[in-house]
Amino acid sequence: MKISFTFEPKPVIQQELQEQFPNHEFSFEKGVAPDRDTAIWVTYGEDVKEAAIKSLPELKWVSVASAGVEKMPLNLLHDKEILVTNSRGIHKTPMTESIVGHILSLYRNLPAIYTLTNEQKWEKPRGSKELRGSNALIVGPGAIGEEVGRVLTALGVEVTGCNRSGEAIEGFASTVSLEQLDHQLASADIVISLLPSTPETHHLFTKEQFHKMKDTALFMNFGRGNVVSEQVLVEALKAGEIGGAVLDVFEVEPLPERSELWGLPNVVISPHVSSHSDFYVERAMEIFSRNLSKWEQGDTDLENQVDLKLGY
Amino acid sequence: MKISFTFEPKPVIQQELQEQFPNHEFSFEKGVAPDRDTAIWVTYGEDVKEAAIKSLPELKWVSVASAGVEKMPLNLLHDKEILVTNSRGIHKTPMTESIVGHILSLYRNLPAIYTLTNEQKWEKPRGSKELRGSNALIVGPGAIGEEVGRVLTALGVEVTGCNRSGEAIEGFASTVSLEQLDHQLASADIVISLLPSTPETHHLFTKEQFHKMKDTALFMNFGRGNVVSEQVLVEALKAGEIGGAVLDVFEVEPLPERSELWGLPNVVISPHVSSHSDFYVERAMEIFSRNLSKWEQGDTDLENQVDLKLGY
Repeated sequence: MKISFTFEPKPVIQQELQEQFPNHEFSFEKGVAPDRDTAIWVTYGEDVKEAAIKSLPELKWVSVASAGVEKMPLNLLHDKEILVTNSRGIHKTPMTESIVGHILSLYRNLPAIYTLTNEQKWEKPRGSKELRGSNALIVGPGAIGEEVGRVLTALGVEVTGCNRSGEAIEGFASTVSLEQLDHQLASADIVISLLPSTPETHHLFTKEQFHKMKDTALFMNFGRGNVVSEQVLVEALKAGEIGGAVLDVFEVEPLPERSELWGLPNVVISPHVSSHSDFYVERAMEIFSRNLSKWEQGDTDLENQVDLKLGY
Repeated sequence: MKISFTFEPKPVIQQELQEQFPNHEFSFEKGVAPDRDTAIWVTYGEDVKEAAIKSLPELKWVSVASAGVEKMPLNLLHDKEILVTNSRGIHKTPMTESIVGHILSLYRNLPAIYTLTNEQKWEKPRGSKELRGSNALIVGPGAIGEEVGRVLTALGVEVTGCNRSGEAIEGFASTVSLEQLDHQLASADIVISLLPSTPETHHLFTKEQFHKMKDTALFMNFGRGNVVSEQVLVEALKAGEIGGAVLDVFEVEPLPERSELWGLPNVVISPHVSSHSDFYVERAMEIFSRNLSKWEQGDTDLENQVDLKLGY
């Protein structure tokens, strides 16, 4: 069977795959459309367009080495009964470390310490706070949110989850459903969105919801940019409805130069890097290998399968 | 009995103490020597000098609202059989949050993200690392070190403690004695000193020890500045014997303008602020109240008593 990669993992990883799966024909070519006889397409996802899918009559499975699939033609893939798997979960460790790092850094005043270090000034900056005893609300907690919640709990934070059903999450102090979100926003010191991009989550955070938040609240978006309109977020920050924001994702990326988010005090622009890790491809390939072993046995109940109707 | 404070807690705290202990005469005066009939002196410690002690014939107990007592005339206090208690342990939460925050911030590249945010540049900085799976060595783990170790363990770090005896610390992967320190230095990604200032810890980290560390190691000093000579540390950093340093304490504070530590890349100068907390005095006064209740019962086995011979 023809397996086409449209990115190029390190040679050692390519070799391991070929040795582990000698019965398949692998190709690794970045920036080139997959061969017409490709049955399995391994990609970061950005090149999965309608025309490409229509030109691959043998395509049975698209294995995506990232987590977001919102830009892919999911309906067409659904109609053609093509399986899609992604690499959700592999971001768990680096993203948790980034999110918790951002929180501790702001609470303990590290940006001011860095500035004073650069200016070579000995001066005790004011305004550091203790994180212990504060409340965090994690909206959309999958594998990443559960890990963030676990670490924050170890730091003495009261963690509430908010998911579609309100189904309890192990280790969280409490969990509420999306319908109860508004009520929870008022008591959260930190609101962390890890929501995927779906029709349901589009602009889910509205002006009214920022108004309900504490005026000291820290809003963190590490899911997808379009859960909040940039304009709504800018206005909430300018009006002091919230205390600040740390943003790893944006409605438009790269964040345009003219965006008003640049230059607002108390806003950290993390250019979609929180998931960066030296182990990224390695971990994505571990999932792919496990799935390919299943596939060879005729088992199509693959790990990390995307529900093409729900979009994640 | 006369109880003299040489600092001024908030009025509400003063009132609570007077209500809780109506049989004593309290005075709260910052910058003024205690009255001659003072039996209990409550202080931040900086004013506990030989002459002051000699002028207080009734003095039985010095209650220090900070942790370090190294500048106090401990021998004289010992000879005069004056009890000394300190407030060690109350720094546990803010210091742990600062230490773990500094580690995560550097591993996840937050200083570069802050700089790019300020410069209004969308650019993905390189060099972020995962903390999980790394090794931390905590030298001198008392209450603070144990808490730092607990949180780092929750983040997937392999934590080794190093104390005088090598006695095991609950929750740590391993503990070694001070004699085995040299051997451990070679495998630590992060070396955290929380040592107090005593004759034994003076310049304990030598040139040879920095040479033994990984050239990528992060050295953090959050105990006392004189565990390493500034010159030795500067040379180790300049020679690339270690990867960087985060320093909250220094041989001379404030760190002099001419110090070479200013301006070295990969050095963060935290101006002795990691223990800052809004709850500081409150927590110190809780310990004092518990001890004063004991004292009233004639019990001199006080909490946080300082061993005047060991110096901590």
